[in-house]
Amino acid sequence: MLRIGIIGVSGYTGVELARILSGHAEVEITVATSRQYEGKPLADVYPSLRGCLDIVCDNPAGEEFAERADFFFTAVPHKTAMDIVPSLLAAGKKVVDLSADYRLGDVAVYEQWYQPHSSSELLAEAVYGLPELYRNAIRQCRLAANPGCYPTSVILGLAPLLREKLIDPDTLIIDSKSGTSGAGRSASVATLYCEVADGFRPYKVGGIHRHIPEMEQELSKLAGRGITVSFTPHLLPVSRGILSTMYAGLAADIDLDAVHRLYRRTYDAEHFVRLCPKGCLPATQHVRGSNFCDIGLALDRRTGRIIVVSAIDNIVKGAAGQAVQNMNLMNGFPETTGLTGAPFFP
Amino acid sequence: MLRIGIIGVSGYTGVELARILSGHAEVEITVATSRQYEGKPLADVYPSLRGCLDIVCDNPAGEEFAERADFFFTAVPHKTAMDIVPSLLAAGKKVVDLSADYRLGDVAVYEQWYQPHSSSELLAEAVYGLPELYRNAIRQCRLAANPGCYPTSVILGLAPLLREKLIDPDTLIIDSKSGTSGAGRSASVATLYCEVADGFRPYKVGGIHRHIPEMEQELSKLAGRGITVSFTPHLLPVSRGILSTMYAGLAADIDLDAVHRLYRRTYDAEHFVRLCPKGCLPATQHVRGSNFCDIGLALDRRTGRIIVVSAIDNIVKGAAGQAVQNMNLMNGFPETTGLTGAPFFP
Amino acid sequence: MLRIGIIGVSGYTGVELARILSGHAEVEITVATSRQYEGKPLADVYPSLRGCLDIVCDNPAGEEFAERADFFFTAVPHKTAMDIVPSLLAAGKKVVDLSADYRLGDVAVYEQWYQPHSSSELLAEAVYGLPELYRNAIRQCRLAANPGCYPTSVILGLAPLLREKLIDPDTLIIDSKSGTSGAGRSASVATLYCEVADGFRPYKVGGIHRHIPEMEQELSKLAGRGITVSFTPHLLPVSRGILSTMYAGLAADIDLDAVHRLYRRTYDAEHFVRLCPKGCLPATQHVRGSNFCDIGLALDRRTGRIIVVSAIDNIVKGAAGQAVQNMNLMNGFPETTGLTGAPFFP
Amino acid sequence: MLRIGIIGVSGYTGVELARILSGHAEVEITVATSRQYEGKPLADVYPSLRGCLDIVCDNPAGEEFAERADFFFTAVPHKTAMDIVPSLLAAGKKVVDLSADYRLGDVAVYEQWYQPHSSSELLAEAVYGLPELYRNAIRQCRLAANPGCYPTSVILGLAPLLREKLIDPDTLIIDSKSGTSGAGRSASVATLYCEVADGFRPYKVGGIHRHIPEMEQELSKLAGRGITVSFTPHLLPVSRGILSTMYAGLAADIDLDAVHRLYRRTYDAEHFVRLCPKGCLPATQHVRGSNFCDIGLALDRRTGRIIVVSAIDNIVKGAAGQAVQNMNLMNGFPETTGLTGAPFFP
Repeated sequence: MLRIGIIGVSGYTGVELARILSGHAEVEITVATSRQYEGKPLADVYPSLRGCLDIVCDNPAGEEFAERADFFFTAVPHKTAMDIVPSLLAAGKKVVDLSADYRLGDVAVYEQWYQPHSSSELLAEAVYGLPELYRNAIRQCRLAANPGCYPTSVILGLAPLLREKLIDPDTLIIDSKSGTSGAGRSASVATLYCEVADGFRPYKVGGIHRHIPEMEQELSKLAGRGITVSFTPHLLPVSRGILSTMYAGLAADIDLDAVHRLYRRTYDAEHFVRLCPKGCLPATQHVRGSNFCDIGLALDRRTGRIIVVSAIDNIVKGAAGQAVQNMNLMNGFPETTGLTGAPFFP
Repeated sequence: MLRIGIIGVSGYTGVELARILSGHAEVEITVATSRQYEGKPLADVYPSLRGCLDIVCDNPAGEEFAERADFFFTAVPHKTAMDIVPSLLAAGKKVVDLSADYRLGDVAVYEQWYQPHSSSELLAEAVYGLPELYRNAIRQCRLAANPGCYPTSVILGLAPLLREKLIDPDTLIIDSKSGTSGAGRSASVATLYCEVADGFRPYKVGGIHRHIPEMEQELSKLAGRGITVSFTPHLLPVSRGILSTMYAGLAADIDLDAVHRLYRRTYDAEHFVRLCPKGCLPATQHVRGSNFCDIGLALDRRTGRIIVVSAIDNIVKGAAGQAVQNMNLMNGFPETTGLTGAPFFP
Repeated sequence: MLRIGIIGVSGYTGVELARILSGHAEVEITVATSRQYEGKPLADVYPSLRGCLDIVCDNPAGEEFAERADFFFTAVPHKTAMDIVPSLLAAGKKVVDLSADYRLGDVAVYEQWYQPHSSSELLAEAVYGLPELYRNAIRQCRLAANPGCYPTSVILGLAPLLREKLIDPDTLIIDSKSGTSGAGRSASVATLYCEVADGFRPYKVGGIHRHIPEMEQELSKLAGRGITVSFTPHLLPVSRGILSTMYAGLAADIDLDAVHRLYRRTYDAEHFVRLCPKGCLPATQHVRGSNFCDIGLALDRRTGRIIVVSAIDNIVKGAAGQAVQNMNLMNGFPETTGLTGAPFFP
Repeated sequence: MLRIGIIGVSGYTGVELARILSGHAEVEITVATSRQYEGKPLADVYPSLRGCLDIVCDNPAGEEFAERADFFFTAVPHKTAMDIVPSLLAAGKKVVDLSADYRLGDVAVYEQWYQPHSSSELLAEAVYGLPELYRNAIRQCRLAANPGCYPTSVILGLAPLLREKLIDPDTLIIDSKSGTSGAGRSASVATLYCEVADGFRPYKVGGIHRHIPEMEQELSKLAGRGITVSFTPHLLPVSRGILSTMYAGLAADIDLDAVHRLYRRTYDAEHFVRLCPKGCLPATQHVRGSNFCDIGLALDRRTGRIIVVSAIDNIVKGAAGQAVQNMNLMNGFPETTGLTGAPFFP
């Protein structure tokens, strides 16, 4: 059994890692840290896990936890991650980092959107942990930068079109909607039940959300040219789920059947990407609790635009599930281990 | 007291009309029809109205109800409306029709998106019932075609920019999200609680929703040129609310302050349009139960696009409330009569 | 116009008071305090109120606000209320206090469930502000203690049966369910959207909720003997609404028709209490946003028990609406002024 | 691999069976019937299952499906079940029936609450499929009558107290709340999103719900005397989950610690029953998607009553999960096979 450490186990992403790994045949969690709940059984914080997982939260600062596991997930905020990851690597461990700290290859871009970087020497080495794009590199890396939730939905949705240069990148509009778990488990008025329920709103409108540089980095690589995206996130009154609706002008005369064939070709061997049949479109409730990314396509002949819709569970394929997928690759396990459960519906 | 008839009182729009009119100082409901609930007190169908409104549902076919009211709202599906409206007008009544039957001035466009029109001679006379655009014409008309819910949110959001030719209409993308009450009260698997709750999905993607020609008609008039829109509706797990996120490339060098000034100038005298302060954006929960349309603006300097966000309660400003606003105008009542209640939050 | 002061305007109860009073023909809000948002327009805290109400939050400590209004609502936590109410009374103002501080007539009971009382001399004078029970006393009082949300639903539901001694008080079980707005607007993990949505749980089980002594005081008066209740509150994934299901063994041989007649007799003249027809039962969605208390009755012949179900909107009839009803009585306004709106459904 | 047939796969219970069995190591689904969707891939009806399960819906009438599987689940309404089950048994198959048709041992009681029984000769043979009570009998039976959702939550919650005669059965009150999936997937106005969301209501009040005789049969056996229960179901605005709050007068002088010890003793070896620590109580969100039944206890010293709270996922432990647990027992598989996933939270 591979011994797993989870740094930051008590957030929604951390506990979802714990939930997934509790059903993973090849690993056991031997360390799990939480500043806030040090000394507490995780099942006292999350009663859902009682009887499923017997972990006590460790203090991340207090001890030599690096020795107590072989492989680490860092599920802490950006900036906190870069304080921890280098020492884990130095101790010879492999790491999937779920923060933003190692996603951007260009330190200048990182520092423009976040703050100074204290271990930028690792940026060249870190692999962007989107297995559908970088499977081989992930297999060989010791540090995978797990993608953001929004970027996962966007990049998987657009990759085939951009690679084949079928759309005009300058016309790209991305309208995304996320469940509230994406805001984390901190006490805050803005995410109280009464503020979110029976409502809907955009936030960080106007090109200011921090997932933008990450999308642009990856979409630009796919397109072979620089891309600047229009991206607007919205807050959904659901716990789990991201749905991205993406619009772009067609750059070639192509019909919907041909686009479908392209997507089928691209994703046929990908277990976690499901292409909706023609005429069908994704829904977040159909991926809930699973590592799937569902993609649907429509063509608006009247405007010459293609509309790509993708849906994921933001804390599975958008965070913890994808992190386990990366861990599987980095350790030579079958890629779907621990991730084969069907979505929960209703 | 003006005697009011509601044709089709038992749908969500009809009952919202009844609710609003029960608090309106100048009118009383004297006829209300429902094929399905003929002979039943409306409060048996909607217990929320018990003690507020003492109406029994009439059979729309059975009697000469035209004589029993002075003013009519037709809250029935398209095609059914055109079977009723002409006879009401012939009986000398004024009508606000909440269906799509009299919204499109061009019968060819109507018949392309719907089905043959049996009273197209009324199209020239009917006034598009968006008071913020057509107040004077509404005051003098006998038939107001109450706008669709999506078009209301879109047209109010874009009017200032199009009139001033500040955006390139060819770049316009409209991504809208609606609460489930928009789907009506018919028994259907697709709108069961378990199918909608904790989920989110698009529908009618690719330029096929019937509100498109209505938007295009009005946006084209505002712009002084033909406009073809990209429009995608989505279904929200909320009962009430529409939020539209609209993207367009700027056609002029203008900053956000100037756009704000333009919107303030345009809507300052409009009681039901509220401009969000700079940095703030609308949320459906902040207009719930009210006749307000909230509008927020953001500018994405990186892409040269402006983002307009508008929010309404789909069954108030998007249907019944706007219909009452039109009725007020058509009868010389103060425009806000019966519509002054503040939104319900939380 | 009566000048109104709201002490504690920025909680869910305070803002609901502001919303209701914004539509009240006889009053205007001249003072509204909030420690947290001092100096901020209330519409910046609650954008729903933009254009409806132009109030800036005052500092409750900073000035002589008592002079700036004629009538006060204190919508602050218990213990804070007793620091403010005596000085308002001393300044010659009338007060509706929405906290628990003046609800219990017996200071010993208060101090057993809460903490020491600093103005117990007012307890004898304060009137329990449930108009359906104490209308005349409320009309003449200067301090009305607005009932708790759970007690309102329970007392109105049980009053007729207890007065007529038709049930055995020792068998009384009260199972109540409340919407999340009852927990207030403080940032807290327990009331985050993701913790509450798609879930249901009891809390304070085993006779420990602080509304118990208040229920027992009033139910005992009605029954003419001491009553100890079994009361269990639960948290519903809704914003507004309380539904109480109450069980008691019948103490007399009476059929459901007779009980219905008793309730009809009791509440026929009560505008805000609606008796459901036989076979119908209340639902929180049918009172949402209104000051109604709906009551339904069923008799279980197999067990000899009667089941009373009552539903209110916890922040209207359970708090702000009832407070306005009391204010109307204390000022000689028609009792329903400002409270006649029909419930919002859907 | 054991070949499995699911009769009635397209309801919420049937599809949950399919979901669970798709992750079960010892079985494969070889037949699945649906009158409504005959000939359609199940993944077209439930897109959540795309890529997880490759089943086409069969016509239940059209063919000799009994030959195509070794073990059957009948997930059809009562009365329909008794038309199918006898022939499956006659063909030598074992069956878990999820309807009510074989739960009641006394045909007279069945016919009083339902309608005439056409295979009452099987009642004596059928085993009530609650493994925590009847594990050994289930292991040897060929027909298990899978318990109702409400009874599962109630019986597991009360069994220890009744067996030990610690409560007075005549004082028993059961107040239960269920998610909307319990109402099934038929199109109906009452379970539309807009009718259920943001609301809460009781139904079938007054001792008339059909799960009552089932509870009384099992509770009476446990108590060794006849028990008549007061039972009130309510509809929650959640998709999955039942929570039952049960009240009873203590019949013995016992403290909470002793009751906790009794429950621990009773359920310590039961994988699927989790006892909440003292001071904690169950919540439906903590069992969502799992086969757990969580039980919490409180004692109200003031009234001498004990309150037992139990929570299950109504379509897992309350239906499909328990059916698989029974199937495991009937086939000699480890009892938890396919059912070990941790609950989904948030």
